[in-house]
Amino acid sequence: MERHFDDHLQALKYHLMKMSATAEVMISDAIKAVVERNDTVIPPVYLREEQVNHMQMEIDETCLTLIALHQPAAGDLRFILGAAKANAELERLADEAVNIVQRSEHLLKEPPLKPFEIIPEMAVIARGMVRDSLHAFVNRNVDLAREVLLRDDRLDDLKDAISVELTAYMTSDPSSVSRALELFLIARYLERIGDHATNIAEIAIFVVEGRDVRHHADKK
Amino acid sequence: MERHFDDHLQALKYHLMKMSATAEVMISDAIKAVVERNDTVIPPVYLREEQVNHMQMEIDETCLTLIALHQPAAGDLRFILGAAKANAELERLADEAVNIVQRSEHLLKEPPLKPFEIIPEMAVIARGMVRDSLHAFVNRNVDLAREVLLRDDRLDDLKDAISVELTAYMTSDPSSVSRALELFLIARYLERIGDHATNIAEIAIFVVEGRDVRHHADKK
Repeated sequence: MERHFDDHLQALKYHLMKMSATAEVMISDAIKAVVERNDTVIPPVYLREEQVNHMQMEIDETCLTLIALHQPAAGDLRFILGAAKANAELERLADEAVNIVQRSEHLLKEPPLKPFEIIPEMAVIARGMVRDSLHAFVNRNVDLAREVLLRDDRLDDLKDAISVELTAYMTSDPSSVSRALELFLIARYLERIGDHATNIAEIAIFVVEGRDVRHHADKK
Repeated sequence: MERHFDDHLQALKYHLMKMSATAEVMISDAIKAVVERNDTVIPPVYLREEQVNHMQMEIDETCLTLIALHQPAAGDLRFILGAAKANAELERLADEAVNIVQRSEHLLKEPPLKPFEIIPEMAVIARGMVRDSLHAFVNRNVDLAREVLLRDDRLDDLKDAISVELTAYMTSDPSSVSRALELFLIARYLERIGDHATNIAEIAIFVVEGRDVRHHADKK
């Protein structure tokens, strides 16, 4: 029975990592659509969203089955509940990639507003946070999880910077309003991806240390 | 032992309902700050956010304890896992109320842009969705849960309507840009509250019917 439980647990980790990898590709493709004005990457994002939705339901069922069949001890139980929560975060952040792609479809109908600087940097940070937060969770690596939490501040700063820039565009040139609004939302979707990765990192710490860092000062 | 488990389960439901009631007051107060330009309701929102954060941690621990101590049967296990998920949704939607309050603090420094029509209506719908989705979950009321799902469409339509209206303001009057952006975000935060309530309603259906409506057509 023991061996069987470990096999199930390994499969759970594998599926979470696969889901994370899929979401990471979605983020990159969504930003490619925006920055490179490349609409060939758009259909694969929608396709992967369906895969992610399917993965989410499978992982939830695996969590339920693991608990019901094996009645795991406290540490494993905490990990499995954490997996169910991380699973929800991954699905949500994949949705944000879809939101970005939807905005890009509007943007591609109009001429570019300005060269891209901040959004590509935000995307690299957000994607890295997703990868590393899930890595930290699966490998119970608290140091990596804490390092992910720190990166979220940089993402927030970049979002604030681009908001100021876009507000200036809208104020000085009425014809820029609708495009600037799309970019304003895209920056916020990237920030949200960082928030979901932060949540996963906090779950990782909660699982290992058995204490809750979600609403404590050491997040800062 | 049976009685003991039921007592714990009742306590779990009570705490979720209390958390929901707190979040509902936060939503009403946040919108009062925006619409009535009343800043006395702002400090209580921040205070309640701390209470909600505390409740979230307590409820997660209760879920873990319930599973570890009582090794519940499949139906109860599904309910407890659903409670842990609904718990996360409640905390997130309370955060959206805090986001609204933060925007209101900026808005109160400037003269009002226009009379409020859509935002108060959105707030009433969003608050009702929170109350009823949690009610549906706790009382395993699938009909009510499905009815909540339908209300989300109205919220999305109102968000789209106000976005069009605010874009027109920004395009025609540069001095309106920063205020219109704040209102644009407030409408999106209300829409997010509806999304979280939708998630809770979907969890309610998942728990009762043992099947996943999250990514199926019958949501529409």
